[in-house]
Amino acid sequence: MTTDLPIIRLRPKSKPQAIRHGFPWVFADELVVDRRTRAIPAGSFALLEDAERKPLGLATVNPNSKIIARIMDPDPEALITRDWIVTKIARAHEMRSRLFDQPFYRLIHAEADGLPGTIIDRFGDAAVIQPNAAWADRMIADIADALREVTGVTTVILNGQGRSRSLEGLEERTDVLSGEVSGPVQVQMNGAIYLADLTQGQKTGLFYDQRPNHAFGQRLAKGARVLDVFSHVGGFGLAALAAGAAHATCVDGSAAALELAHGGAKAMGCDDRLTTRQGDAFAQMEELLAEGAQFDVVICDPPAFAPSKPALEAGLRAYERVAKLAAPLVAPGGYLGLCSCSHAADLSAFRNASARGIGRGGRRMQLLHTGQAGPDHPTLPQLAETGYLKALFFRLDG
Amino acid sequence: MTTDLPIIRLRPKSKPQAIRHGFPWVFADELVVDRRTRAIPAGSFALLEDAERKPLGLATVNPNSKIIARIMDPDPEALITRDWIVTKIARAHEMRSRLFDQPFYRLIHAEADGLPGTIIDRFGDAAVIQPNAAWADRMIADIADALREVTGVTTVILNGQGRSRSLEGLEERTDVLSGEVSGPVQVQMNGAIYLADLTQGQKTGLFYDQRPNHAFGQRLAKGARVLDVFSHVGGFGLAALAAGAAHATCVDGSAAALELAHGGAKAMGCDDRLTTRQGDAFAQMEELLAEGAQFDVVICDPPAFAPSKPALEAGLRAYERVAKLAAPLVAPGGYLGLCSCSHAADLSAFRNASARGIGRGGRRMQLLHTGQAGPDHPTLPQLAETGYLKALFFRLDG
Repeated sequence: MTTDLPIIRLRPKSKPQAIRHGFPWVFADELVVDRRTRAIPAGSFALLEDAERKPLGLATVNPNSKIIARIMDPDPEALITRDWIVTKIARAHEMRSRLFDQPFYRLIHAEADGLPGTIIDRFGDAAVIQPNAAWADRMIADIADALREVTGVTTVILNGQGRSRSLEGLEERTDVLSGEVSGPVQVQMNGAIYLADLTQGQKTGLFYDQRPNHAFGQRLAKGARVLDVFSHVGGFGLAALAAGAAHATCVDGSAAALELAHGGAKAMGCDDRLTTRQGDAFAQMEELLAEGAQFDVVICDPPAFAPSKPALEAGLRAYERVAKLAAPLVAPGGYLGLCSCSHAADLSAFRNASARGIGRGGRRMQLLHTGQAGPDHPTLPQLAETGYLKALFFRLDG
Repeated sequence: MTTDLPIIRLRPKSKPQAIRHGFPWVFADELVVDRRTRAIPAGSFALLEDAERKPLGLATVNPNSKIIARIMDPDPEALITRDWIVTKIARAHEMRSRLFDQPFYRLIHAEADGLPGTIIDRFGDAAVIQPNAAWADRMIADIADALREVTGVTTVILNGQGRSRSLEGLEERTDVLSGEVSGPVQVQMNGAIYLADLTQGQKTGLFYDQRPNHAFGQRLAKGARVLDVFSHVGGFGLAALAAGAAHATCVDGSAAALELAHGGAKAMGCDDRLTTRQGDAFAQMEELLAEGAQFDVVICDPPAFAPSKPALEAGLRAYERVAKLAAPLVAPGGYLGLCSCSHAADLSAFRNASARGIGRGGRRMQLLHTGQAGPDHPTLPQLAETGYLKALFFRLDG
């Protein structure tokens, strides 16, 4: 066949086997990067070949990214059109429809759902797209179109912020592509009601990835006094209240997020059982300790302290410090949940830091449960090692 | 204080820090093993000291085991009595009562629940004890007594079989310590009904550890044709039927286990939706393939192919072969669950073997979910690396 796509080629020493087995990325040092390759506009498509000129698939190129090429389709003759995108979204949609009763979930989780670098979260008849790769930026109108066709959503928001985009050399941009946004959206999850701010909030407005970990926390919550540190819009706290917690205290640095937590609790009819404390989480934990406060369940879900390898050491120290501060706040025989959303800190390193912190906080422990992101956040097994979200649930000594 | 307990001592080069931080075992090459230590009767207690004669805790000794000493209590003055055992069981019972609506669970999971080497599974008013350490063998009457006192169970069965006991140099023995056993026990789990044979079955009669993985399988099962390979008494198959599967096929080598699967399905009123195939699972999968059979959900839960390090290579090849045989039995866009209960195969090795097998079976995949044993199987964080049960749920290409 003839193709007018540019051709990009692996270096002789790069191993094409991983790509043939489904690894989706080519790093800049694995590719022959000559003047012609450098001139390929970010986000265009190219034919990827191994060093022996055998085709490996259709790729998208971004000369500005360390991930210089991402496989779009193992078929080198694939045409990346609106229809091709429809097929991918329909396949992802079929799986979520099987897994979830209500249309509130991550619909597209990037590579694993066949749309490299693209995140789509669905909130009923609204959806938020994060185009974290140049091709998705370029084809955003087709993606939004396909999304509306498959799911029937009317409001589509483009959220182009955050670290992932800057690693790709993409500018920040946020836009309402269709429909209207009027205030926060109500999201039901695990029987709780959350308010998600789709245009002003963090990421896409709500962290769907914690759903199964919220659910595990609920099993510990009946009649309990619960402390939710780094609560955002009330993730663990509102889930605990929905499961019959006696009381929840949510701590967060963002007054806006805590306002949404109260809004959720009001919608649930239990705002009288919610207390919020705004301020630095470390300082708040020290204050609670000084007050002699104790809780039956304490859960800490901090931001990524170790977002990248250079930040790993400092990040692990921060996780240890969270554990050390939280442990004395747990009543005898109570439970402590510790979360990490750091790619760079793997499960073993995070578990060690957490156990060390609990020990330095003067407590002995059992590990009951290790949670992860829910199944609306699939991974490719080739990338699973870095599974970013970890949630450890400990029981502390009596 | 004076004590008449023998004293055992770490070798100068052994590091006592791990034990001070909660690591529960001393291996034979870490201890000074002189004639006096060798003469300590298996299952007695001793005072463990570091090389500088500082006390590390109260330990139980078994000169016949590679794990020559297990910490019973960090307090060197602890008295291991019936009352001490009552405290441990009560603490474990409190946690299970919070986590589970019905008294069907693993009540004691060895070291993590404070009773080294001791497993207790509860089945309503019956319980099965596996005393897989010499001290528990010796104090079995006290353990049974404490168990009855805390939980109110009447029937107590001693199941002294399996690899763990032979590693400790303990003989096989099975006994009804109190109460009566008349036929299999009905166990409700995830809405399914299982029949557990507490005296003749594998391990304690039912595998409680798979409960959360059965539950995940249920989310995929509605209206589906399900294949459960290495089904035992119908673990995944009956769970799928309870969740509305159109049909389940259970494959197992044991006719007795499949008989119990039918018994469970009858009790659930859905035996018309269950087919069983008795025989070698590999041969059965090949036959199904030859018949052109396809299923929406296939789950394989084989026995431990890699129970120990020397068996690792062969074990991983066996897991790969299971994946390769199972993959073509999955309908386009369907789901494949692969489990391993091998200590020696860690998550990463098992995931790689599974992904390789699926690839060689001609399919591409997403990884949706990584499951583990339920929270009635707690671990010590110091031993968590070896978390034995892994369950990977993949979606295969369309």
